[in-house]
Amino acid sequence: MIGPALPPFLDLAGTAIFALTGALLAARLRQTFVTMAFFALVTGVGGGSLRDMLLGAPAFWLHSPWVAAVIFATALVAWFTPRRWWDNELLEWADAMGLAAFAVLGAAKALAFGVAPLPAAVLGIVTGCAGGVIRDVIAGEPSILMRPELYVTAAALSAILTVGGEVAGLPAVIAWSVAWAAGFALRGTAIRWR
Amino acid sequence: MIGPALPPFLDLAGTAIFALTGALLAARLRQTFVTMAFFALVTGVGGGSLRDMLLGAPAFWLHSPWVAAVIFATALVAWFTPRRWWDNELLEWADAMGLAAFAVLGAAKALAFGVAPLPAAVLGIVTGCAGGVIRDVIAGEPSILMRPELYVTAAALSAILTVGGEVAGLPAVIAWSVAWAAGFALRGTAIRWR
Amino acid sequence: MIGPALPPFLDLAGTAIFALTGALLAARLRQTFVTMAFFALVTGVGGGSLRDMLLGAPAFWLHSPWVAAVIFATALVAWFTPRRWWDNELLEWADAMGLAAFAVLGAAKALAFGVAPLPAAVLGIVTGCAGGVIRDVIAGEPSILMRPELYVTAAALSAILTVGGEVAGLPAVIAWSVAWAAGFALRGTAIRWR
Repeated sequence: MIGPALPPFLDLAGTAIFALTGALLAARLRQTFVTMAFFALVTGVGGGSLRDMLLGAPAFWLHSPWVAAVIFATALVAWFTPRRWWDNELLEWADAMGLAAFAVLGAAKALAFGVAPLPAAVLGIVTGCAGGVIRDVIAGEPSILMRPELYVTAAALSAILTVGGEVAGLPAVIAWSVAWAAGFALRGTAIRWR
Repeated sequence: MIGPALPPFLDLAGTAIFALTGALLAARLRQTFVTMAFFALVTGVGGGSLRDMLLGAPAFWLHSPWVAAVIFATALVAWFTPRRWWDNELLEWADAMGLAAFAVLGAAKALAFGVAPLPAAVLGIVTGCAGGVIRDVIAGEPSILMRPELYVTAAALSAILTVGGEVAGLPAVIAWSVAWAAGFALRGTAIRWR
Repeated sequence: MIGPALPPFLDLAGTAIFALTGALLAARLRQTFVTMAFFALVTGVGGGSLRDMLLGAPAFWLHSPWVAAVIFATALVAWFTPRRWWDNELLEWADAMGLAAFAVLGAAKALAFGVAPLPAAVLGIVTGCAGGVIRDVIAGEPSILMRPELYVTAAALSAILTVGGEVAGLPAVIAWSVAWAAGFALRGTAIRWR
């Protein structure tokens, strides 16, 4: 079962953002370029891959000519830019963008596969959180989930709004944009005022 | 390939029990309600999801209207009951019930998919252990597998009895009940007399 | 979608080698025989299982009568041989063999499923590294990826040569042998001269 696909550039954008957080974490841990690229890869494609495996579909990046190139480019960016650019909270802001993006994409792809609204929202939450969890677990860092801040809640907001938009019959581009922005804003609030 | 399904309430019961252990662990770590629900989710559906992905089938909870509700209810129970109820060994006893339940369900679903007896028993073991391992790894706790106690062995007992019952032609309800009870009793012995 | 299969003995050989590293790690951590066998299992079949789930195929070991037997035999070997045999770097050399083997097998199976060369190489890298990562994460050890040595690079060399050989039209047996030997030699160099 291959099933319907989302517009590929959306998966690509989410992948690039999360990939950057993986590469930056590896950079902080003073890893080599290849290991940085590997972290970019598993963080970037981790959430979407888990989504696709749970849906019973092949992973989206196996049939895209672009994902590997995007991962490589992301690792290059992280490698050649001065580390102090990334010092402050930039990694967390990128993570927030990726979290909201994959929460939307997880819920949307589940709906496209005929999954009912409630489990579709749940898949969105899992998809959004998975990339960061995989990154932290492999790196041996405390998982971002365990911090005393809103994180899963932001993914839930994005996923629920995506499903709500579909149920309400809104155009996808509007529903997804609003859902992404709301989740990102909520997570951003948690980062900014903790 | 969707393939045959087990009676859905069995997956649901196993999910609820394991979900409780995830929610309780999050409660001990003083997480928010949403994070508790997330831990309930990944622990509850982790083993069954891995089973389904390995079999090449969509995850069972994507096409069930009940799983999300059960997870939510479990998180509510863990949230509103006083923590001292859960202090002693209750989390471990719930884990033992879930371990045996998913060992049976993993082996039984593999047989229903036409997997041969030996690999079906192996899938049962993996399915039983996966939920607890995922919970502990994400929480950054030492994995329950690493303790010097019978754990995998109890899952193996349940899985092997499930397969043996099928090979011997016993009615499923009897074979599964005996297999579950035996694995639970063995794990319970390890908890009680360590 | 079942799709084409590789010659089964290749998956078996890679599984046995990686399984040995899992059993040896469990032996070092003074686990019981059953836990050793479980670590042998998840390490041995982890990479190939992830490969198959990403491709949307059932895990290779579910339809092989041999894998469970190989895992069990590996655990017996690790159990009955004196620990000092395994003390030095033997675990790492076995890991190096498994790394190169699953990098080749991951790329080759992806090509057989019609995946394009670049993502096929990426799947090879992921497949090669996954077994060791899963082993270390479950055991609570620092992941082998995080050491300041060539590791992912060796998997990348094997995966890229496998894909290059296919693109160049070389016979599979030659391309795969060269690709395996090159990745193993590169990783071996990193172990020997660090």
